[in-house]
Amino acid sequence: MKAVSGGVTAAKGFEAAGVEAGIKYKERKDMAAIYSRKPCVLAGTFTSNVVKAAPVMWDKKIVEESPFGQAVIINAGIANACTGKEGYDYCKQTAIRAAEAFGVPENSVLVASTGVIGMQLPIERIKAGVDKLADAKSDTIEAGTQAAKAIMTTDTRSKEVAVEIDVKGVKVTLGGMSKGSGMIHPNMCTMLAFVTSDAVISKELLTKAVKEDVKDTFNMISVDGDTSTNDTLLVMANGMAGNSEIKEGTPEYGVFKEALHYVNETLAKMMAGDGEGATALFETKVIHATTKEDARILSKAVICSSLTKAAIYGHDANWGRILCALGYSGVMFDPEKIALYFESKAGKVLIYKDGVAADYSEEEAGRILSEPYVSVIVDMKMGNETATAWGCDLTYDYVKINADYRS
Amino acid sequence: MKAVSGGVTAAKGFEAAGVEAGIKYKERKDMAAIYSRKPCVLAGTFTSNVVKAAPVMWDKKIVEESPFGQAVIINAGIANACTGKEGYDYCKQTAIRAAEAFGVPENSVLVASTGVIGMQLPIERIKAGVDKLADAKSDTIEAGTQAAKAIMTTDTRSKEVAVEIDVKGVKVTLGGMSKGSGMIHPNMCTMLAFVTSDAVISKELLTKAVKEDVKDTFNMISVDGDTSTNDTLLVMANGMAGNSEIKEGTPEYGVFKEALHYVNETLAKMMAGDGEGATALFETKVIHATTKEDARILSKAVICSSLTKAAIYGHDANWGRILCALGYSGVMFDPEKIALYFESKAGKVLIYKDGVAADYSEEEAGRILSEPYVSVIVDMKMGNETATAWGCDLTYDYVKINADYRS
Repeated sequence: MKAVSGGVTAAKGFEAAGVEAGIKYKERKDMAAIYSRKPCVLAGTFTSNVVKAAPVMWDKKIVEESPFGQAVIINAGIANACTGKEGYDYCKQTAIRAAEAFGVPENSVLVASTGVIGMQLPIERIKAGVDKLADAKSDTIEAGTQAAKAIMTTDTRSKEVAVEIDVKGVKVTLGGMSKGSGMIHPNMCTMLAFVTSDAVISKELLTKAVKEDVKDTFNMISVDGDTSTNDTLLVMANGMAGNSEIKEGTPEYGVFKEALHYVNETLAKMMAGDGEGATALFETKVIHATTKEDARILSKAVICSSLTKAAIYGHDANWGRILCALGYSGVMFDPEKIALYFESKAGKVLIYKDGVAADYSEEEAGRILSEPYVSVIVDMKMGNETATAWGCDLTYDYVKINADYRS
Repeated sequence: MKAVSGGVTAAKGFEAAGVEAGIKYKERKDMAAIYSRKPCVLAGTFTSNVVKAAPVMWDKKIVEESPFGQAVIINAGIANACTGKEGYDYCKQTAIRAAEAFGVPENSVLVASTGVIGMQLPIERIKAGVDKLADAKSDTIEAGTQAAKAIMTTDTRSKEVAVEIDVKGVKVTLGGMSKGSGMIHPNMCTMLAFVTSDAVISKELLTKAVKEDVKDTFNMISVDGDTSTNDTLLVMANGMAGNSEIKEGTPEYGVFKEALHYVNETLAKMMAGDGEGATALFETKVIHATTKEDARILSKAVICSSLTKAAIYGHDANWGRILCALGYSGVMFDPEKIALYFESKAGKVLIYKDGVAADYSEEEAGRILSEPYVSVIVDMKMGNETATAWGCDLTYDYVKINADYRS
């Protein structure tokens, strides 16, 4: 597996574009498209929220019922959530226009939206944007980057990743882009992630790989615990690499899953580290847990704890808050047995063991916590399972961004 | 039922005190005692956190095994949590000293602590504090207030309430005090609440009443979702009112439960409204839910949502965030059927129905949300069950209080 530059246009046969459509923002690109020259098998995972945005309902139907997908139209600024029948009809109108403009079947067009809930899309501007996207689309790396920029809301950085693998002597590429700033932002932000590949793989196997992998990647990040109405991950594979089909239980499937995991984890970590107002990517790794599920629950409890997040912002080695979060997670353990460490580029320090504080230097711990990427390692000493979760610190700017009147 | 002035000393035979013991704070009272002239039946509920502070373990044992309780010793500044055997031994030493100083059996002494996790108590200062408390104790209203002030940490106001009821012609009083600023603060704050009564009631019935009532009072508040290691509610009844014993299934038990509910709810709301950094008490009332449990889950999801809390701070009528929180609560419902209202002293406004925004004035909604006590009413239109939860807004000061280095 080799990391390469680029994003959704890295794999063969994929084109992308980002254009100014004037949806809500001014003087910035706010619509994007992904297009594949050949039809793609599709896999998707969507928000578990009972309140689902219209584009989520549209895409679920396409992923479940259509034989393939070929284009994705995305807008930033308005989420098209809680918009009733009118909102759903706008998804259909967008797909019809894209089918014409891109020359693909209507039921191969996916749509995604991110932004404010409850507002209707300016559908004529969306349609004009679709035409512009069809004209602008290109297979260059730069075109992928423009798409990644166009889907940002409160994100401060665009998010792209690409990787190459070898499938029986044939080069297969996976690339992706996402926006945040969490799973987890129902107003101005929503998690959207798009992964493209030129691999030859069946829809069933691609779906299986995606569903397994999101448990350890996108579902392990949190910015503020608020699960969005619009969360969408779409994975498209167009088969243009020409590899022999990737089959379950083969070494090639292992390599493909590893590459997919790398792409998903990289995009997920980028989102967590660029959470609203964040100054640090905050990772929690739970080791030696009894079950994988326990490890996931424990690590997520720590990265979701408001008090722990505020302590990370304060570069404060407040292990009591971490222990407290583990304690209310719902997983049973003996607090006297576990050990806690802080780790970053600046070093690693044991801070808690045998039921009491370890003998560590506050100064050293503070130095470790001053890095932009800090980890807590929780050694449960109970079994052999591991999980990692990613979040960010809780800062003044998180409050500022989300309390309009005060900002 | 009649509200009266005072707190833990309102009921007959109860004394209290607050003194400066120099535990951690300077020039303020930081130790408190509650003492009953006669032995009390006891009921208690404690944190569900796996990581339990030493005083929680001590008190659970006393409540379960002792025939009665007669004194409570409380300190602020240090939580005595994650302090191992030494910490538990300090609870015992405190009880022994209090038994001597107050002239009560050792196994009738309860202890409670709130403050920083992981630090050992300065036990000699605690012991000296116990002696001072025994000297200072008094049955005046002022003595109760001094105790309520001494147990504060980041609280900005002391919290007391008292109420009188009539039990077959005999006046029975219930009084209480608490500190916050939530359930829910493992470092500087912990929920501690103490309720005293002169009622004649059995331990079994008192325990039943308390366990039922906390589901709708203390367990329905949240400041930041972090369940403390020290949360403690103790209810003591010394029987000195001389009423005929309150029995289950009688009108008198109904009156007693109503009074207990009033005391608990008042203390709980005071804690939520004085959450760390809070500028407003934020209430969510769910009506017409299918089950009581659904109503509780839905209302708590809204008051726990960081984005909704930030919107309340911003006086922003962001109903999308509320709908989103209801949607990820785990309760199934049809978003097209429910209705949302904002309400405060300044008025009431319908903001969402039939799946889309209602026709309301942003200005009016902003005026309603500018009050220090604001409510969201969620009409599920599914059944007949109701629940209310209380939280507070998420502010810059919450971050400031909890990110030491930055403040």
